[in-house]
Parts: sequence; structure tokens; C-alpha cells
Amino acid sequence: MDSNIKSVGILTSGGDAPGMNAAIRAVTRAAIFNGMTAYGIYRGFKGLITDEIEEFKTNSVSNIIQQGGTILKTARSDEFLTTEGRQKAYDNMRKYGIDSLVVIGGDGSLTGAAVFANEFNIPIVGMPATIDNDLNGTDTTIGYDTALNTIMDAMDKIRDTATSHERLFFVEVMGRNCGFLALNSAIASGAEAAIIPEISIEKDQLGELIQQGFRKSKSSSMVLVTESEVTGGAIKLAERVKKEYPQYDVRVTILGHLQRGGTPTAQDRILASRMGVAAIQALQENQRNVMIGIHENEIDYVPFKRAIKKQKDISEEMLEVLRISSI
Amino acid sequence: MDSNIKSVGILTSGGDAPGMNAAIRAVTRAAIFNGMTAYGIYRGFKGLITDEIEEFKTNSVSNIIQQGGTILKTARSDEFLTTEGRQKAYDNMRKYGIDSLVVIGGDGSLTGAAVFANEFNIPIVGMPATIDNDLNGTDTTIGYDTALNTIMDAMDKIRDTATSHERLFFVEVMGRNCGFLALNSAIASGAEAAIIPEISIEKDQLGELIQQGFRKSKSSSMVLVTESEVTGGAIKLAERVKKEYPQYDVRVTILGHLQRGGTPTAQDRILASRMGVAAIQALQENQRNVMIGIHENEIDYVPFKRAIKKQKDISEEMLEVLRISSI
Amino acid sequence: MDSNIKSVGILTSGGDAPGMNAAIRAVTRAAIFNGMTAYGIYRGFKGLITDEIEEFKTNSVSNIIQQGGTILKTARSDEFLTTEGRQKAYDNMRKYGIDSLVVIGGDGSLTGAAVFANEFNIPIVGMPATIDNDLNGTDTTIGYDTALNTIMDAMDKIRDTATSHERLFFVEVMGRNCGFLALNSAIASGAEAAIIPEISIEKDQLGELIQQGFRKSKSSSMVLVTESEVTGGAIKLAERVKKEYPQYDVRVTILGHLQRGGTPTAQDRILASRMGVAAIQALQENQRNVMIGIHENEIDYVPFKRAIKKQKDISEEMLEVLRISSI
Amino acid sequence: MDSNIKSVGILTSGGDAPGMNAAIRAVTRAAIFNGMTAYGIYRGFKGLITDEIEEFKTNSVSNIIQQGGTILKTARSDEFLTTEGRQKAYDNMRKYGIDSLVVIGGDGSLTGAAVFANEFNIPIVGMPATIDNDLNGTDTTIGYDTALNTIMDAMDKIRDTATSHERLFFVEVMGRNCGFLALNSAIASGAEAAIIPEISIEKDQLGELIQQGFRKSKSSSMVLVTESEVTGGAIKLAERVKKEYPQYDVRVTILGHLQRGGTPTAQDRILASRMGVAAIQALQENQRNVMIGIHENEIDYVPFKRAIKKQKDISEEMLEVLRISSI
Repeated sequence: MDSNIKSVGILTSGGDAPGMNAAIRAVTRAAIFNGMTAYGIYRGFKGLITDEIEEFKTNSVSNIIQQGGTILKTARSDEFLTTEGRQKAYDNMRKYGIDSLVVIGGDGSLTGAAVFANEFNIPIVGMPATIDNDLNGTDTTIGYDTALNTIMDAMDKIRDTATSHERLFFVEVMGRNCGFLALNSAIASGAEAAIIPEISIEKDQLGELIQQGFRKSKSSSMVLVTESEVTGGAIKLAERVKKEYPQYDVRVTILGHLQRGGTPTAQDRILASRMGVAAIQALQENQRNVMIGIHENEIDYVPFKRAIKKQKDISEEMLEVLRISSI
Repeated sequence: MDSNIKSVGILTSGGDAPGMNAAIRAVTRAAIFNGMTAYGIYRGFKGLITDEIEEFKTNSVSNIIQQGGTILKTARSDEFLTTEGRQKAYDNMRKYGIDSLVVIGGDGSLTGAAVFANEFNIPIVGMPATIDNDLNGTDTTIGYDTALNTIMDAMDKIRDTATSHERLFFVEVMGRNCGFLALNSAIASGAEAAIIPEISIEKDQLGELIQQGFRKSKSSSMVLVTESEVTGGAIKLAERVKKEYPQYDVRVTILGHLQRGGTPTAQDRILASRMGVAAIQALQENQRNVMIGIHENEIDYVPFKRAIKKQKDISEEMLEVLRISSI
Repeated sequence: MDSNIKSVGILTSGGDAPGMNAAIRAVTRAAIFNGMTAYGIYRGFKGLITDEIEEFKTNSVSNIIQQGGTILKTARSDEFLTTEGRQKAYDNMRKYGIDSLVVIGGDGSLTGAAVFANEFNIPIVGMPATIDNDLNGTDTTIGYDTALNTIMDAMDKIRDTATSHERLFFVEVMGRNCGFLALNSAIASGAEAAIIPEISIEKDQLGELIQQGFRKSKSSSMVLVTESEVTGGAIKLAERVKKEYPQYDVRVTILGHLQRGGTPTAQDRILASRMGVAAIQALQENQRNVMIGIHENEIDYVPFKRAIKKQKDISEEMLEVLRISSI
Repeated sequence: MDSNIKSVGILTSGGDAPGMNAAIRAVTRAAIFNGMTAYGIYRGFKGLITDEIEEFKTNSVSNIIQQGGTILKTARSDEFLTTEGRQKAYDNMRKYGIDSLVVIGGDGSLTGAAVFANEFNIPIVGMPATIDNDLNGTDTTIGYDTALNTIMDAMDKIRDTATSHERLFFVEVMGRNCGFLALNSAIASGAEAAIIPEISIEKDQLGELIQQGFRKSKSSSMVLVTESEVTGGAIKLAERVKKEYPQYDVRVTILGHLQRGGTPTAQDRILASRMGVAAIQALQENQRNVMIGIHENEIDYVPFKRAIKKQKDISEEMLEVLRISSI
């Protein structure tokens, strides 16, 4: 161990995602395993400013791997956007003797981390945790697989009703400006189509669906829609169908916040555990300003800049799999 | 066996409810067990008019006990509201030699069944299947326990996010004009309150909650709301809070149609099986115009008139249990 | 409030059951709501002797309603079986000023509670928590509904394999000497039969099944078996079939301890909440030496003696429902 | 489309795995989408010999994506091991005009497929479906992710009891001679260790665990064990602990056949859909004697010989993640 990092602060930031607790557990234990002192920081960067910091032992993270949400809680911090706020945060780190940080969160959290790291020359490693899977440099993010399964379970229930009543359902899912959740849960739930921002921006997806008569051979249909200004959302799409095609018995469901919670899936727990161990490994190797990514099933170090750069591409293969398997 | 009923038609009608398939299975097999011929009628009373009728054998209902929805499907029928429509329905019964009917559904379905039974002197037995638990003469209805657990599972997920972010959630659930689902799922999910029609009509429940400061000792809160004109629904309530108390971080989730689907719980499968066996038993005893009820854990025959009469009372005990256990 | 009971100790004892945490939560909050001081006692009667006692506030029981197991843990205590042990337990109660106890557990726990209550004239109220549903004076016990659903979920999975391979499965479930779990989960999972102690003692259930050729019209079968000396258990039954009928492709699964855990169902959480509120109510009414029961959906006070007296009867109706619905 | 393959027979063979139905659905629809005729063959190679063959339309595979098991059923066929048997199978293919096969199954199924393909010069494409994840040339197999989650769910339940009683649990899982399920579900469930064939063959894993005192800082422990002659199985390991360390309160659970069933996870449904589309694509490209694999998230064609060659290596990284995260 040639690093002189002796301690690490751990925080979760931004929207919560299932698997954050598994990540906190792995980082804490990997730190202790490597002889470091671990600190839990509550309410994200806000708690770093307001001094909500506590030393974490092995037992502090017992029996949390299966819990959704985050035991460290999460909050917005307007103060952290100011130089004064970040100075206070840095002063608290010095007060506790915290050498480094592991920041678990999404896009915005890593952006904040990058600014802070540069300003005070602090070694910070990020872990991608967001159900939207909208970070670059990693094939998947902590929480994405759980959200996918949560949506699929909801769709399995809705299918029971759709089939029994022979209805057309528009179901709105999260994803910010990314169609991953909508496209992949459409395949997984045997839905007819996914209306996603990446495609909506180019062409009238609903128009095409209507032209094809939804599904000629089928009496019920389910269409997934990404919550987004680009797609218009499920309610607007449903209104358009009702107006143009009053013969359809149309229903809308907006899944909402239940997509964020729940016990994490095996994939998310394993991913969080791998990434947590790797985050401490990265600090030990004097890495900084990197996000832990997973690419082709191997751990990667992704510079913050690249991670938060721009939208990931939607896979042409997956679009075709949906098209073919829903005929 | 002193009845001269030799055959029975089975149909599901109205909104689908989990356990309808378990009910179809039990009625079919109990009929065959008692030497009767069983017919599945598709799409409710509509299929009786349009002749979508099929003989059901023991194997026709194999491997369906665990499925949500209804394999017989369900539909509205405007034609059945006319004398001509009902005459066609009756003619089809005679064509197949169907002596009697078992109608699985809610309020509206039993009302239709009662009219039809009187008009043509047909032995009809009803089975209460609705997630709303809004039928009289039965402690519970097929589908209610499953819906309760579905809502509770969703609340468990939402709690993860509510706790992590320290938010106030209004979650809207089904129930028509009945607060059963909202009240009981509030108790089951450890929510703070249930805003239900039976109480809202008398007093300003939200006003009281606001006055109490929601939960003084708590940083997050969840409030269940019955979808109803009387309560105003979750969105309106949330808007009122946001306006009067901008310091609260308020969110709304409307659970929607996923509450109707899903594999039925043990209670619903057992209830449907008991009631299905009892429905055939009732026909064998020359009962007619009765709904099978469950009261104090015993099977009851409830005259249609009483079953559909008026709203069930909300239990004072349950209101108190919620009040006490959520302090 | 005319009782002079000012404080209550809460403990869980015996085998753990899902819903125990919901019970602890409700008792704690109902006590505080009624102006009493609440104490959590760890590891059952053992912790009362070894002084593992802690005051519980409203927040001590936050966010536990959904957790399986018991946060108070449970343990055997040989020392509590001795007069000296019980004297120490009593001394600790006096030390903390604990006036009364709520004991959450099964048969053995209530037996111990009765002895202790009589010896030192302590007001003790019991709450029935056991997955076996083997206590008298209550229609159901905390944990039973969850175990029923856990078994049913496992059976739904096993059915997938049984159907795909056309096999005969013997599945062994818990229940001590009670067939409730086996019989009711057989109905709920669409199994062919339940081999249970109450019947096995009188006749050769397997012999009858073999004679009927299991299910003539069916290619796969599932038989539930209560773990018990009387039934012989699943392995012995399977061996007998393999020997006498080598043409059957027989498999055995013993569900084991996973039946005890898991997040409680809505019914169990509601039941535990009702009973917890009622337990404090009973103490306020100067009841003692009673178990809270639920009978015909109303709360009952059941003298300890009656609760632990003898086995509950298996319902003839349920046996017939299984027989008919599995043809 | 330059292939002259006009039709395809689809069969599932060997142990059933969740996602087989999603695979059948995708192959059927991709075939029809590409203008081919699709045939469902029941009971694997056996049904090809006994002529249990049926044309499949788009609707034949509706509403099955969420079902565990296989609607095509699966069976052993001793006759297919003989030249005469395979000749009959081939004759039936010619009778129906079936040009090619898609075989969905594990190790043994692909071995049989390879022999048959070579003998009669038939284009056969394999799809890896087994919960054991023991095929080469593919990062994962259809069914593996579901089994992982099923085991994890069971472990979450067992943890409730282990923690409440402070016990040591040995839990035996499937895997044939592969430790994937045990190792990865140990990480996912927060277990202390995984005793797996790949390591057991080299050293005394239990001995090491005992020497470390299981987990010094912990009162309960869970150890996953692969069902295998090499590990000895959970019962033998538990007996050894009880003998040498009678102070431990040891319990054993053997998960058994419930690991094979259940509704498939999102990953397994998506994987099966991708592979199903790819299998037809491969036939269109005149591929034969290949298994569809997934490697670094891209579809691969893997020669049968390589797929069934030898055991896959266990990842050193995953062993370390388990070691570190369970301190």
C-alpha cells in the first residue's frame, strides 16, 4: 500500500437509487479492510457543510445490503454551489482528518464532486448510482437493474388488466432524457412499443404506431413512454389517441416514485459491492477525479469529465429486438 | 343431490380482480365434481349475447390459480341493459342447455344478474370479486387482499425514497367511494394518515393533519388518499399543502391500474376456492338470487338486494389503530 | 384511565415470526400514546435476566413495520425455567420500574409467561406470534399469513418445474403438529393433496392417493406434507412411492427456515397493529394473564390456560375444498 | 435474405430454466418476421421422435414471456441416444418440412444437438438456457440471473431468522460443478462465505472459516454451499461444525427445486429475446452448429465444441469482493 490516504468520507447525493446501501457497505468495509478510517456523511454535500459526520465501523453497515434508499440520506445543497459553502465543507473534512471522498450518485453529484476536488485538491472517487443509466463510461449504473425489474413487475400486473379488458395502456416511466428504462422494460414486459426521447426527437413514433393499427393480431396493447418534454408524456399521447381513434379503450398509468425504491436486485447488489471495493482500490492507487465504471464486465476508471459529458446512445439492436419480438 | 340443475355457465363481469381465475377454476371443478356440465362464457354478459361460450373440462382451468386477471375476460355490454339483449342472452343459454349461472364480479355485475334472474326465472349465484371490498353481507371480497398487498409493496418502495429525501408523499389508491383500501393499507404500510370518503364528507381531514404538523417527531410522511370526488384526490390535496406550507417537500403518486393485477395472495386464492365450491353447493340446494358471502369466517348466502344495498361502514377500531400506531 | 400501570416491558420469545416487529412497534406506540413508559427487552426472558433492557421511544420503532424477524431478537433461556432465574428477572423489572409485560410469541412463550405472572403477581398480556397457527382462542396468529404466502410463492416456482418435467413433488412445510400451513397452502397453490398430522394419525393418506393414481387426468402433481413424526415427512413418503411405483418421477423439497422470514403481509402487519393496540388497552383495563386473540374479526381476551390447551381442529370444509378443487 | 431455410423447429431440452418461454416467444416471432414457418416441438428430442409437433403462430406465444418453466415441456430421451431414434427424429422433420432447429437448453442438450446436426447435416443453432451458468463462450446463460435473485430472496428471509436467533446457517444451492450461483448469491445476500467446488478441490474452505472463528464481530452467519460431491454439501459441513464446535447453533437449508422456477427477471427476459432474434438471424446467415453467446454485451456465435468444452473459471475478483465485503 503506497498511498498515504488514511481515511475516507462516504456520501450519497442526488436522487436515491436501490443499491446505494450496498455501495455504502462495500466502501466502508473495503476501507477498514485496507486499514483506513471510514466516515459516513449524512445528507450528501449538505451534511459535509453542516457537520453531520460519524465514524463508521464494520457493524455500522450490517444488515443494510438488502435495503432500498440510503441510510446516509440525501439532500440538495444550495450552499455547496457557493465557494463559501465548499470552504466550510473542506474545513469539516480537515477537522475530522478526512483525506478523501467517495461520492455515490448521478450526473449532478459527480459534477459537484469534480468542482470540489479541483478547488481543494482532494482525492475524490465517484460511484454511478442512478436508475436512469444516463452516465457515460459505464455500461450500467447502480439502481438501473432494480428499476427495470420494478417497472417490469408493474407491467406484469397491468398486463393482467389490459388482457382481461382488451385495452390500450400508455405507461409512463422515469429516465430523464434517456430511453433506457422505457426501451428495455418494453422488451422485458412484452410491450408493443417504447416512445423514447432519442427517437421522438426525430420522428412521430405515435403516428407510426397508429398507422400500423397498434397490433393487428392483438386485442390489447401496452406502450411504454419516457417521462420527458420530448415525448410529451403518457397523458398527452393518450389524449391524442382518444381524439383520433375513439374506438380504442385507452388508459394511462404514471408509475412515479415507486420506481426509485425497493430491495435491490442481485445484479445491483453485486455491482455496488464490486464498485465499492474498486473505489477504495482506486484511492489506494492514488486515483482521483474518476468515476468507477463497469465496461464489458471489467472495472474501469472513467474521468469525471467523460462520465458526465453527454447522452449515451440507444442500441439499434435493442430497438430491433423490440420491433421483432412484439409482432 | 335433489336439485335438477344439470349445467352451469360461468362468467366474469365488471372490473377485473385478482383471484377471478381461482374462482373460475373452483366453480368449474365443483360443477364437474357434482356431475354438472360447466360452460365458460367469455366477456361477461356480452359473450352470453354474442355466443362466446365453450364447454369447460377439468383441464380447461389447469394452471390458472396463480394468474391475475380473468381467462374469461370481461367487458361492458350496453346491449344487456336492454330487454332485447337479455332475451338473446337467455336464448343462447337455452341453445346450450345451460340451466344456471355463476356470476363473478362486483356491484354492477350483481345488479345486472338480479334483473336477468328475475326476468327469466334463472337460478343465478353471485361471487363477490372486486378490489374495493364495497359489497355488503361479506367481510371481504375476492381481490381485496391482493390489492392491499400490492399497495403495501408500492408504499414500501416509496418509503425508501420518502425516508432518504425526508419528503411528504400523497399516494392515491383505488376504492371507488370506499376507504377500505386506503385505511388498511395505511396501517399496513406504516403511513401517517388515510384521507377517505367516509370521513372527508364530515370533516377536513387534511386541515387536521396540517394543524398537527403532520408528524412532529418525523422527517418524512406518507398519506394515503382514496380516489374519489369527496376526498378531492391526491393532486388537489398536495397542491393545497404546497400553497399553505411551501416548506414541505411534497410529492404525489397515483398508483393506478397496477392495483388490479398480479398473482393473487393466498387469502384470495383460498377465498375464491371456498366460494367457488359454495356457489355450486348453493345451486345444488336450489338457492338463487344470492351472493356467496364470508362472514365471521363462515360461508353465507346473501340476497342480491342486501349485497348491493349501500356502503359498508368503516371500522372505528381501525381508524384508532392507525391514529395510535403512527404517532 | 383507571389503571395504575405506568410502564411496560416488551419482549419476543420462541421461534421468530414475520410481524413481530410490527407488533413491537404497535405496543411501543400504544404505550406511549397512553402515557406509559415502554421498555424493549432483548433476547426474550433471557434478556430480562441478564439485564438487556432499553427504554423505547416512538422513534425506536420507526421503519421496522416492514422487516421480518425481530429487532428485539429471541433466545432460549434455561435459566428462566428455574425459580432463581425468574427471581432475577423480577428483580430487573423492579430495578427499571417495569410494572407489566407484553410477551410476543407462541405456545412455549405463553406457558413461561403464565408461570412468571402467577409467581410474582405481574400483569402480563400475551400476543400470539407463530407461523404454525397452533394457539387456541384465536382464529389466526401473527406470522401465519406471511408463511402461507411464502410457501405458496415457493410452490408457484416448483409448479413451473413440475409442469415442465411432468413430475410428482413432495414438499415439506413447517407446522409442528398442526396441518394448517400444509392444508391451506395446498389449496392456495393448487396442489393435489396435503398430508397432515390430524388425518395421518387416523388413516393412510398416501395409500389413498396412490390408489387413486394421484391425479388421473394430470401429468404433474404436488403434495404438501407437514414436517412431523406422524406424517413421516416428505423424504419417507417419497421413498415409499419410488419403491412401490417406480414409474413416477418423484422429487422432494424441504422448504426449511425460509418459511420463517420475509417482510410480513398486509394481514400480518394489520393484525399485529390491532393486537398491539389491544394489548396496551387490556393492561389499561387491568387485564392480566390473557392472550390477545382475534375471533370472528373481533379482538378477544383469551386466558393463557385456554390459549395453550390443545390442538386446534382442522376444518372439514377446507379438506373438502381441497378435495374438490384439485380434481 | 440469401438463406434457403424456410422453416424452423423449436424445442427445449434438459432441466428447465426461467426465460425459456421468453426464448420460445422470440424465436417464434423472429422466424415469422423473417417469413419462415415455426414449429413447436414438445418434450425436447423425445417429441421430435414421437411426433409431438405443432405449427406456431404469433399468438401461440402470446402472454408467456412472464411465465417460468417451458410451455414446450422438456423430457429425457433415451431413444435419441440411439441411431434409430435420431433417424425417426429426422424423418419427422422431413415429414413436416422442418429445415432447421433451434435447441434451447444446457450442456447435454447442445451435445445431443451437435451429434444430430452432424449425422444428418441439419442446420442447428443452440441457445444456452441453464441456471448453472456452466457453458463456455457466453458470459451468462438464460435463467442464471433469475436463479441468483431467487436464492437471494430466500437468503433475505433466512437472514431475518439468523439475525433474530444469532445462528449459523449453511444453505445449499444448485450449480452442478460450478460455483457461480453460490459465490455470486453470497455476495448479493451479504453472506459470510461460499464453499464452492472450484476452491474446495484445492483447500479446506470450512477449515479456514472455522479457524477464523467465522465472523469475529458478528453474532450470526450464513454460508452458501454448492450442491456437489466436491464440497460435500451443506449437511456434511454442518455436521462437522456441530461436532468440532458444539457452541454454534447451526442450521441447514437446502433450497432445492424452487431455484429452477419463477417468473424470469428483466435481464433473463431481455437476454432470451436478444438471443432468440439472433438465433434466427444466424440461421438466415447459414450458420450451423453454433450456440448463441453473449460476450461483453455483444452477441457471439460459439461453436458447439467450444461451448460444452470445460468448466468456466471462477473470477478471482469476485472471490475478493466477497472476502472484503463480508468482514
